Amino acid sequence: MSEILSSLRSLMASHTPPLDALVVPSEDYHQSEYVSARDKRREFVSGFTGSAGLALITKNEARLWTDGRYFLQAIQQLSDEWTLMRMGEDPLVEVWMSDNLSEGANIGVDPWCVSVDTANRWGKAFAKKSQNLIPTTTDLVDEVWKSRPPPEMNPVLVHPLEFAGRSVPEKLTDLRAKLKQESARGLVIAALDEVAWLYNIRGTDVAYCPVVHAFAIVTTDSAFLYVDKKKVSNEVSEYFKGLGVEVKEYTDVISDVALLASKQLFSSFSSKSEDMEIDSDQTDRLWVDPASCCYALYSKLDADKVLLQPSPLSLPKALKNPVELEGLKKAHVQANKKKPTSETSKLTELTVSDKLESLRAAKEHFRGLSFPTISSVGSNAAIIHYSPEPEACAEMDPDKIYLCDSGAQYLDGTTDITRTVHFGKPSAHEKDCYTAVLKGHVALGNARFPKGTNGYTLDILARAPLWKFGLDYRHGTGHGVGSYLFVHEGPHQVSFRPSARNVPLQATMTVTDEPGYYEDGNFGIRLENVLVVNDAETEFNFGDKGYLQFEHITWAPYQVKLIDLKQLTREEIDWLNTYHLRCKDILAPFLNQAEMEWLKKATEPVTDALDGCSVWVLWTEIKHVTESTFSEYSLPFQSPLSNSHELKVQKDHELREM
Amino acid sequence: MSEILSSLRSLMASHTPPLDALVVPSEDYHQSEYVSARDKRREFVSGFTGSAGLALITKNEARLWTDGRYFLQAIQQLSDEWTLMRMGEDPLVEVWMSDNLSEGANIGVDPWCVSVDTANRWGKAFAKKSQNLIPTTTDLVDEVWKSRPPPEMNPVLVHPLEFAGRSVPEKLTDLRAKLKQESARGLVIAALDEVAWLYNIRGTDVAYCPVVHAFAIVTTDSAFLYVDKKKVSNEVSEYFKGLGVEVKEYTDVISDVALLASKQLFSSFSSKSEDMEIDSDQTDRLWVDPASCCYALYSKLDADKVLLQPSPLSLPKALKNPVELEGLKKAHVQANKKKPTSETSKLTELTVSDKLESLRAAKEHFRGLSFPTISSVGSNAAIIHYSPEPEACAEMDPDKIYLCDSGAQYLDGTTDITRTVHFGKPSAHEKDCYTAVLKGHVALGNARFPKGTNGYTLDILARAPLWKFGLDYRHGTGHGVGSYLFVHEGPHQVSFRPSARNVPLQATMTVTDEPGYYEDGNFGIRLENVLVVNDAETEFNFGDKGYLQFEHITWAPYQVKLIDLKQLTREEIDWLNTYHLRCKDILAPFLNQAEMEWLKKATEPVTDALDGCSVWVLWTEIKHVTESTFSEYSLPFQSPLSNSHELKVQKDHELREM
Repeated sequence: MSEILSSLRSLMASHTPPLDALVVPSEDYHQSEYVSARDKRREFVSGFTGSAGLALITKNEARLWTDGRYFLQAIQQLSDEWTLMRMGEDPLVEVWMSDNLSEGANIGVDPWCVSVDTANRWGKAFAKKSQNLIPTTTDLVDEVWKSRPPPEMNPVLVHPLEFAGRSVPEKLTDLRAKLKQESARGLVIAALDEVAWLYNIRGTDVAYCPVVHAFAIVTTDSAFLYVDKKKVSNEVSEYFKGLGVEVKEYTDVISDVALLASKQLFSSFSSKSEDMEIDSDQTDRLWVDPASCCYALYSKLDADKVLLQPSPLSLPKALKNPVELEGLKKAHVQANKKKPTSETSKLTELTVSDKLESLRAAKEHFRGLSFPTISSVGSNAAIIHYSPEPEACAEMDPDKIYLCDSGAQYLDGTTDITRTVHFGKPSAHEKDCYTAVLKGHVALGNARFPKGTNGYTLDILARAPLWKFGLDYRHGTGHGVGSYLFVHEGPHQVSFRPSARNVPLQATMTVTDEPGYYEDGNFGIRLENVLVVNDAETEFNFGDKGYLQFEHITWAPYQVKLIDLKQLTREEIDWLNTYHLRCKDILAPFLNQAEMEWLKKATEPVTDALDGCSVWVLWTEIKHVTESTFSEYSLPFQSPLSNSHELKVQKDHELREM
Repeated sequence: MSEILSSLRSLMASHTPPLDALVVPSEDYHQSEYVSARDKRREFVSGFTGSAGLALITKNEARLWTDGRYFLQAIQQLSDEWTLMRMGEDPLVEVWMSDNLSEGANIGVDPWCVSVDTANRWGKAFAKKSQNLIPTTTDLVDEVWKSRPPPEMNPVLVHPLEFAGRSVPEKLTDLRAKLKQESARGLVIAALDEVAWLYNIRGTDVAYCPVVHAFAIVTTDSAFLYVDKKKVSNEVSEYFKGLGVEVKEYTDVISDVALLASKQLFSSFSSKSEDMEIDSDQTDRLWVDPASCCYALYSKLDADKVLLQPSPLSLPKALKNPVELEGLKKAHVQANKKKPTSETSKLTELTVSDKLESLRAAKEHFRGLSFPTISSVGSNAAIIHYSPEPEACAEMDPDKIYLCDSGAQYLDGTTDITRTVHFGKPSAHEKDCYTAVLKGHVALGNARFPKGTNGYTLDILARAPLWKFGLDYRHGTGHGVGSYLFVHEGPHQVSFRPSARNVPLQATMTVTDEPGYYEDGNFGIRLENVLVVNDAETEFNFGDKGYLQFEHITWAPYQVKLIDLKQLTREEIDWLNTYHLRCKDILAPFLNQAEMEWLKKATEPVTDALDGCSVWVLWTEIKHVTESTFSEYSLPFQSPLSNSHELKVQKDHELREM
């Protein structure tokens, strides 16, 4: 038995009360998807490095729940002591605990690392057998974790208005209007991107996520930020003073929430604070988002006086202002400001992804990647969230499919793109699958729909072409993308998950369009663009609701040799040609002659020889494209073993945000 | 003020307690969609004849709620005393009552005519202002309704096993297994089609619905039928005795439900009945479907001991057995057994629909229509559930679109089909709209999807082609179809309504595929086939869930001249040609030479001249089809004013179930 598990079991036995089981979630104190190194408790305990999952340790067992994106990866990473529980196939964790743990069992969890929603759901499931959810007094994992990284000590940075587009006072005014509307006197903000968005600050506390570890409280007349004060420079301190935001220590949040509950929380900036208690118009509710607020803070409040409801910041953050939209589009098309640095001789998943990062790093406003690059060859591409490791990563292989899902954080926006390519001769089956994925990608991207439509309804458009063959993918189809914030952003999404019904898509939202297909042991395919939701100028307006459509803002060619053009409709071919033509026009100003040659070939208009008659007349620069011309120009490198060739394989990626 | 409203208001005032408002629902004691003449209380009160709606009468106001299918019809039929409330646009009835009626208001309703679900929902809304839902002691409408038709007195008919396909003992065994599974000791059955299905009986109490006015109770060891005993012949009485089903008077159901609650309901056929009370294994719950059971019966039960959950009969009834499926397919393709009787000289919506009925009546096993035929010319077709009236119906017009939605009850199955045709030259706009509807109809009909997918998810497939133009339709896309039972059958449906998520589509279910488009004042378009859900033989089986697809069982050509072929994809053209070829083959044995000539032309393979290259090679009997040949064969009658021509217009309809 591993030392970690045995140490944890000792602590569980000596806990008051003794614990029959310990849950170790993936989340940090802010219920984040991506967490900093010192918050990777679940990874430390289980060895599984995926971004989503939950570990359960009982006296005799250790189980790890994760979702379809990670089944293969988890199998590879978990030791024999662990049992993989497949979300969507195996029982939910709370059902499993209720069914398999004994009557009256005590199940411990760090109350900072579990949301109100989750704690309540578990509590309900546990009632059946009088089991108890025990908030541990300390985090048992932290006690065991001797080599735990120290706290991050990165400066809080002000995000300038030229990128943020909307000032903090404006955002506070809007927020307070919503508090009033819901008769709430305050809001506890735990989500890191909401704190950053509201106060127009950024940071580097969490890899890939430009945020600061901080909480916030906003009342009708005060605003607080809870952050390690060592991270706040004098200059930034002045910025907050100017805004009337009181900066307090990170650890003060728990006592301040208790004060807030008893109406004893006063700000030195608030003129009204002394009258607060005697203000008879003051309503008594405190707003808490049950998905992002941890149980530790919630437990300090009077449950009867809590408004448990999605955060009022979530939708305003998702609706991008004109400055953010402009920045986001620029972030997708940026010139190199300096020379890329990375040089490499051997082409592996990692060297290619490093090269890609160096290309991005050479651009203006680059602030890091927006998530770990998924650079995967052949069967590795079937691991949906695969991340190459230095000690064990595959070499590029012209006989195998290569999938690259990557993105960056720029001051003016966040990017996320996936392309799948083949440097040799793809099989008919690979082409069939790529074509089905492309058809779904295009169907969703071209959809028009009445206002009020949500991403649950749209999801099938991307899947239907795969379903024809009995194919599917075990992940959602699209997520919001932040403005120099989280690459995965709600409240909307395009997915079969019921939560995708919560919020309809609305103009100025961003959303990805990323269907895929993954064949265990063989290959993976995914295509992903970022879309902006726009008002549609439809010929009619039945029901007077208004209609919406998408605008693609990602510009990178699809690899034509992976498409079976005969399976495309005329509409799909027309769309592909129009998209490629725009790629060429938009990217041209940033390319040298050699790059432009490649792009011209990659974006040449295509036609299905049998059915493309109408396409011929649509295009002025017509050139008959045959299978043989495809293979001529789609083989940018001859062999991964020859090291004399230029690293042309990366042209594909380089284009992604140029 | 009308006498009806003033009389009702007097009764409301003299009721104990006095009523501030009276709700008059459309439903009968069984919460039926189609009700018998004497149960059309809402129609009597309001004058609105649509199948769905709800009337509310207050001291000063009269309001009628109905859904999008009926907005135009309601405007035409309601007098000035009435205000139309548009469901989906105006507030829900319970919200309106809660908002607009005074604090503590008494709102009366006949508790037999309101479901448990509805009563509970209203009760919740009323609590806010301490309003009360008052079950009236008698039905106030019945007291006012002097000319109310007498009770139906039609015989209960046994539905032979050769059509039913599954015996009553088998059905009872299955049902009791489900009761046991849910720890319920009995089930109260109020839905008329469930009573008819369970006991393999049919009747003619309700126009279009081959059912008997009856309730049933089934316990773990007894089975009751509550029906007017005058409807039960000696022969049928023996049938029930043989099954161990005790027949009691219709009116006994309320006292028997009370006895059931106190475990005092015994059947003379049950061997175990005397031991019932002392059977310690006996659980104590009674199963009630809150959607079909009326509040009157429910109120006799101990609410704590009721299992409120969809009926266990609903799904087994929707899953058709092989005999039912065979019958249903036959019902769609039947030879005339006698000569149609109806003759007519003037072509109106009504004479055409009468002719169509007479064609159906000439077929074997005909038992009546399955719903009032929607036969509508021009702007009448925009009234989604239009029904022509003798005194005011339009003449057929070669310059206008004609929509016919019709179906029949046959001993072996129930049919429902819609075709939209134009006998002259359709406008480009009409063709655009017809083509978009057809594209949606084909997209849904051709869908393949993993098991577990519901009709809420599939609905968008039929709408997306319309949404491209900003068009839509205000009704669901598909409903189940009974086996010589209700033409609208649950529990599944294809719709944007949340209830369509309740039950996934499953193999052997029937479902219609009927998108449409309705332009107020101009025209309406709808295309409808009945589909059967089948297992799909997909090339792959990702997720090991199994995949499903649809089989069309309705055979009638689409009118090619209404299709803009250039807007169809090659796949859609191929599908259309395949469907038409099958129409020809399947219907050929039943047609005379003249009819066959027409059918041959109507089903000729088509091609989009520019893009149909591949279609050419697919079809052996190729003939170049031009716009001029379309118009040649698509004008079956020259002018509606000439009365010398044969009534060829009806050939279209005649084919529907031939």
